[in-house]
Amino acid sequence: MDVVAGVDIGGTNTVVGLVTREGEILAERRIDTTAYPDVDLFCDAIAANVASMAERIDDCLVRGIGIGAPNGNYYSGTIEEAPNLVWKGIIPFADLLGSASRLPVSLTNDANAAAIGEMMYGAARHMRDFVLVTLGTGLGSGFVTGGELMYGSTGFAGELGHVIVVQNGRRCGCGRRGCLETYVSAPGIVRTVGEVLAEYGWRSDLAAIPLRSMTSRDVADAAAQGDVVAREAFERTGTVLGRTLANIAAITSPEAFILFGGLAASGRLIFEPTQREMESNMLPVLKGSVRLLMSKLMESNAAVLGAAALAWTDLDKGIV
Amino acid sequence: MDVVAGVDIGGTNTVVGLVTREGEILAERRIDTTAYPDVDLFCDAIAANVASMAERIDDCLVRGIGIGAPNGNYYSGTIEEAPNLVWKGIIPFADLLGSASRLPVSLTNDANAAAIGEMMYGAARHMRDFVLVTLGTGLGSGFVTGGELMYGSTGFAGELGHVIVVQNGRRCGCGRRGCLETYVSAPGIVRTVGEVLAEYGWRSDLAAIPLRSMTSRDVADAAAQGDVVAREAFERTGTVLGRTLANIAAITSPEAFILFGGLAASGRLIFEPTQREMESNMLPVLKGSVRLLMSKLMESNAAVLGAAALAWTDLDKGIV
Repeated sequence: MDVVAGVDIGGTNTVVGLVTREGEILAERRIDTTAYPDVDLFCDAIAANVASMAERIDDCLVRGIGIGAPNGNYYSGTIEEAPNLVWKGIIPFADLLGSASRLPVSLTNDANAAAIGEMMYGAARHMRDFVLVTLGTGLGSGFVTGGELMYGSTGFAGELGHVIVVQNGRRCGCGRRGCLETYVSAPGIVRTVGEVLAEYGWRSDLAAIPLRSMTSRDVADAAAQGDVVAREAFERTGTVLGRTLANIAAITSPEAFILFGGLAASGRLIFEPTQREMESNMLPVLKGSVRLLMSKLMESNAAVLGAAALAWTDLDKGIV
Repeated sequence: MDVVAGVDIGGTNTVVGLVTREGEILAERRIDTTAYPDVDLFCDAIAANVASMAERIDDCLVRGIGIGAPNGNYYSGTIEEAPNLVWKGIIPFADLLGSASRLPVSLTNDANAAAIGEMMYGAARHMRDFVLVTLGTGLGSGFVTGGELMYGSTGFAGELGHVIVVQNGRRCGCGRRGCLETYVSAPGIVRTVGEVLAEYGWRSDLAAIPLRSMTSRDVADAAAQGDVVAREAFERTGTVLGRTLANIAAITSPEAFILFGGLAASGRLIFEPTQREMESNMLPVLKGSVRLLMSKLMESNAAVLGAAALAWTDLDKGIV
């Protein structure tokens, strides 16, 4: 049976899975990323795990490897200055893993891989124009236009989280101010809770939790209990997101925005204000044309599926 | 010799040209658009002009027709609710002209056609990722990503002029408020002159011209004379444009933004503040990666060349 390996590289853990063309994960291993300060040894470990998983499956042929990595550049196959990884500088990761595994390797960033996964196995099946938005520690995005992932001239297209939505707004890790992800992400909504608490005073259970240790789940739980501050924080988060998505729609006219990640799991709390503000700010000619959907890969290992989908796509194109 | 017809449909005049693959315009005719309230007769007139121009050229074979039209939809070949044209509703223009001429017809909006023209004949030759921005009565744009014009799911992608840049900002013809084109366009800079005059008082020659009859050329002439109000109006216009382009770069990561049209012809007055604000607001990983260029088709009949380039492109793809 033909499979590819999907590799999800994270700062703490790396997950490697063998995936069929239909999206079935036949085997999966977890590697401690931090145990490999030497990236060559890390690539050897991935290659060894791929080979040993394949050996245990009858007639298994590994066709290639797809990788989703923070700051991954599709064009060059490099991981560039990723703040949460132990390897510093520009790492020619695809080349290194290609040598270690003797397999064709494709690499991109995690949000792009998730978008390809959604197109092959999830909510974007048969769509040619959509945007996947991941709402986690940051806000990541993958844009598909005309059936193709958009990489741009540098390979770094699709940084929706770093669109500046408030001039001189909140400080962002990128060194600038007012980026979307400082408002719309798990830490973003917690920052908004701080802002709302300052306005409303302490009549909220959230005032009892240190902001640094508060999670978006805490905010969602409080909102579900009817907490006014938590509900207002979701309202504001959805408002900023919805208005930004209306602007993005004027640029790429997608069939859908697909939300993924912890904050998306808050369901109606985030979907309702986002949908409302997106539609009420939409260019008239596009009104009603853009759907707001939940990812269909939230329960499964989306990152490994996305990386595998990248590998299948590039193999089919004859690129790798 | 093989040629295509490039057709530039405007509210007042329509220009039809015969264009070689290399971008030479062999013949050109002007048709009074307003003389044809019946769109069928208008299509007959275009077809007749194409045929009679071709007859006067030795061995001339017309391969197809490309059209740039306001509110033109590439997918359906329709012109939809164009406010400045006499034909109301949704006009199946490509089909009508196809029947009248018995030639393959491609149609898109004028900014998209200009982008394809720039890619085939102008400043974007060999570029796979760029954005053409037309600064005229409105702000139009054509996005090319991965070598392909971006149409989106509706055919109406690339409406950069209708990105909302100021919440509750200036009233726009689209019915919403704060759209980029209310700030950055020929009428947009005149509106800004009104704003600056209100702040600075009447110590400017521009205070002697009624705003309704003021042109962006008047503002450029005054700025060239050192008029403080005119210079401030260009500063503010370039600031809004530059910040927006930095945000767009985070989405599509283009190799270049190419400016076209009357306001672009103001040269340094608009380029300097735009370039400065674009670069100073640019996401660090993209700094220095995006060029700001002047169209290379400003002196020629860009609209006819763009429409012709669309026809050649679709013929080469075997789409029409």
